[in-house]
Amino acid sequence: MPRPDPPAPVLAWETLLDLSDAPLPLRDRLERAVRGAVQAGRIPAGAALPPSRALAETLGVSRWVVTEVYGQLVAEGLLEATVGSGTRVSASSRPVDPGAPEAPPVRAEYRRPRYDLGPGVPDLRHVPRARWADAVRHTLTTLPDGEFAVVDRLGHPLTRTAVAAYLTRSRRAVAAPDDVVITHGATDAMTAIARGLHFAGHRTLLVEDPSWPRLREVAASTGLVPVPVPVDADGVDVDRLAAAAVRTGARAALITPAHQFPTGAALAPARREAIVRWARSVDAVLVEDDYDAEFRYDRRPIAALQGMAPERTALIGSLSKSVAPALGLGWAVMPAALRERVRLGDAARPSTLDQVALARFIDSGDLERHLRAARGRFRRRRALLLAATARELPDLEVTGIAAGMHGVLALPPGVRGADAAEAASALGVAVSALTRYRVSAAAATPEALVLGYGNLSDALVDEAVERLARGIRSLA
Amino acid sequence: MPRPDPPAPVLAWETLLDLSDAPLPLRDRLERAVRGAVQAGRIPAGAALPPSRALAETLGVSRWVVTEVYGQLVAEGLLEATVGSGTRVSASSRPVDPGAPEAPPVRAEYRRPRYDLGPGVPDLRHVPRARWADAVRHTLTTLPDGEFAVVDRLGHPLTRTAVAAYLTRSRRAVAAPDDVVITHGATDAMTAIARGLHFAGHRTLLVEDPSWPRLREVAASTGLVPVPVPVDADGVDVDRLAAAAVRTGARAALITPAHQFPTGAALAPARREAIVRWARSVDAVLVEDDYDAEFRYDRRPIAALQGMAPERTALIGSLSKSVAPALGLGWAVMPAALRERVRLGDAARPSTLDQVALARFIDSGDLERHLRAARGRFRRRRALLLAATARELPDLEVTGIAAGMHGVLALPPGVRGADAAEAASALGVAVSALTRYRVSAAAATPEALVLGYGNLSDALVDEAVERLARGIRSLA
Repeated sequence: MPRPDPPAPVLAWETLLDLSDAPLPLRDRLERAVRGAVQAGRIPAGAALPPSRALAETLGVSRWVVTEVYGQLVAEGLLEATVGSGTRVSASSRPVDPGAPEAPPVRAEYRRPRYDLGPGVPDLRHVPRARWADAVRHTLTTLPDGEFAVVDRLGHPLTRTAVAAYLTRSRRAVAAPDDVVITHGATDAMTAIARGLHFAGHRTLLVEDPSWPRLREVAASTGLVPVPVPVDADGVDVDRLAAAAVRTGARAALITPAHQFPTGAALAPARREAIVRWARSVDAVLVEDDYDAEFRYDRRPIAALQGMAPERTALIGSLSKSVAPALGLGWAVMPAALRERVRLGDAARPSTLDQVALARFIDSGDLERHLRAARGRFRRRRALLLAATARELPDLEVTGIAAGMHGVLALPPGVRGADAAEAASALGVAVSALTRYRVSAAAATPEALVLGYGNLSDALVDEAVERLARGIRSLA
Repeated sequence: MPRPDPPAPVLAWETLLDLSDAPLPLRDRLERAVRGAVQAGRIPAGAALPPSRALAETLGVSRWVVTEVYGQLVAEGLLEATVGSGTRVSASSRPVDPGAPEAPPVRAEYRRPRYDLGPGVPDLRHVPRARWADAVRHTLTTLPDGEFAVVDRLGHPLTRTAVAAYLTRSRRAVAAPDDVVITHGATDAMTAIARGLHFAGHRTLLVEDPSWPRLREVAASTGLVPVPVPVDADGVDVDRLAAAAVRTGARAALITPAHQFPTGAALAPARREAIVRWARSVDAVLVEDDYDAEFRYDRRPIAALQGMAPERTALIGSLSKSVAPALGLGWAVMPAALRERVRLGDAARPSTLDQVALARFIDSGDLERHLRAARGRFRRRRALLLAATARELPDLEVTGIAAGMHGVLALPPGVRGADAAEAASALGVAVSALTRYRVSAAAATPEALVLGYGNLSDALVDEAVERLARGIRSLA
């Protein structure tokens, strides 16, 4: 029998954690008790929690209950699990003001899985909460009274200016303030662009196969039929794109040149030139989804394609992958000639307050400070992930991981991605098959898994990959 | 020649106010200099400014330049003009952090006129800036990490709960949390409802004549043809509404029962019952625009009509009239059966952060504290306005002023509203004619002016009415 870890020295855990919240399952009672004790400040930031085995003994519960609860609260960021030093209350966990209403409980549907390898989620433990609060307060303090009466349809001038400058320096985009439209995010931008394309007579949209479903779905909902074009290791196949355009009459394409989703390929230089030549030759519109281009590790940043053909490229981006979806902020860059072709509709845009806070967040340098810190975190986590896969799955290759927050793990012959994802799920690991993002059922999408690491806790990388490997081996 | 006022004692105004900002007109240079000096803290909060005549002499500029600039900065809330004690720096004007970028300048297009009698604008000098910043910071401090990854399409449960409770206690609405949808405001709600009605087969929408143009315009843009129905002193004429419905097949009506816009009439009790009976008899949908019902002075609050027929009434409201349009927050209440008939579309809704901040703003009591204070301010200003009109225009009646932030001034026989508004405008007073809100050119809309007082400075009420009276007399 393993020797129990020594109990934590100072705190009287059985008193601190009141489990008498009767009608709930024991696991939920413990979770509530730990959360309540941290939020009330009874367990201070930085304090070590007892090892799971010790706490289970103290409280007379099964060890599984404790590890589950620790895992959940680590995933929420309330606790931190560090290799070698156990589980602690996060330094960033703030006791709720005494007297203030309790923090909202995490709703079950928004609990992220413990071993979270889902793509497209930023590191929720490191949302720049205080910096964003500062940007909002600064805006509320300095905004002239008259501005509180209005909402700009295309974006506040301060925000359009700040975003144009940011994209010019960080994405080498060609963007004047008037070319920028502030949106709620990429989906909002795509909805407006798709409506505009439909209005201008488009009925089809060339899309990469595989690709992120959400944007093609909103395009489809406005009446644009998606036309799939295959993707390989050099990104979207431009010859086949041109052929599909001839076949269908399509004159608009939705592409992810910096870091193809989900394969992770960067569009090869020759293809970048080829797609621009194609677009010019048939007077087409390119919609560039620049979803996670801020994060690049192995090579120098790839500039936005938009800079090569600003007159016909709508560049869309957002804070959702780089900061947090909950801020509901993004943009589209469209030079005037394109804006006239792509009418933006009159959907409600973000509030003046949020827009000016975004301008402040960029102009103060906070956005780029946050991105630098996130880049460092993701680089380290990516190294952990690659080391763990090399160790646990030495025969399998991880590709598409030069940028962004995900890579692609090729599966052994005979193992289907969907089955591997299901086997991983049974072991508590959330991961998706590459085929999930397939557009055409006939597409030759490789059997592989998309490994997102944006929101995976560093401390859980090894465990997650070990479980994942176990799942894959059970099928091979 | 009038004796000049004594100059202000302490501050060396010619040094404080540097007018050398060369390429701008003198008026703009002075405005920028005063604003800069206040924001930099060189003129502290509460400090008296020299009387305009004295400052004009000190600086060697015309007195007109100084009064214009004072008026503008009072309108912005940077200065306060109080009867009897001259012009001071507002107590609420905060010096900008040293080192921080300058506050955004007020853009010309968003300068409110000095004598602002435009309707539908709340008191921009009293936006609860600090309280809203507290709500945002509280949200950023307490929101669990997992919530930063998501945006609820219909609204965050905390916000739907808070709004339902608020509307139940303040508007006697019948609203469960699930019945509430959080929107960017009334326009966003109306867009979604109109799209839903169109999808459900509606092609016409009964609207009050006169009425606020924006909501019928968005309905029209979705394909619903507005069918005007006359309004009298008892609100919309329900007999004629029912007749118009028979004539056109319309089975949806957009109404303002609590305080008709723009006439200010409250829908008479018998008519409230009649319109509900009509809606039930033909299975119609009522869209209740509850735009400024929070402010009522003479009588007890009129409950939302929605409470009488929740199964068929969509109640829409927002913070735009009660707090500020710049927050971009509102709601629609629609019980389930109606939600199924009125599909809300997938337009982007306010961010999770803004939604949870709204929940906090309501749950902390700050919204209702703000509304109480605003009600007191509007009550006093309304009394000033009625006193001034009684004095300056003793023969003219002001009606529709029992609630909200505007009343209607009947004009003398032979004077057209449009001409009176134009004459007032020439004297610096922004005011609109009732006929501006007419739907049908054939409607018998009275010749009258809509006097909004939401954003009129108390100190300027007398001057504004005096100028208005001069304009009207010049026509009579």
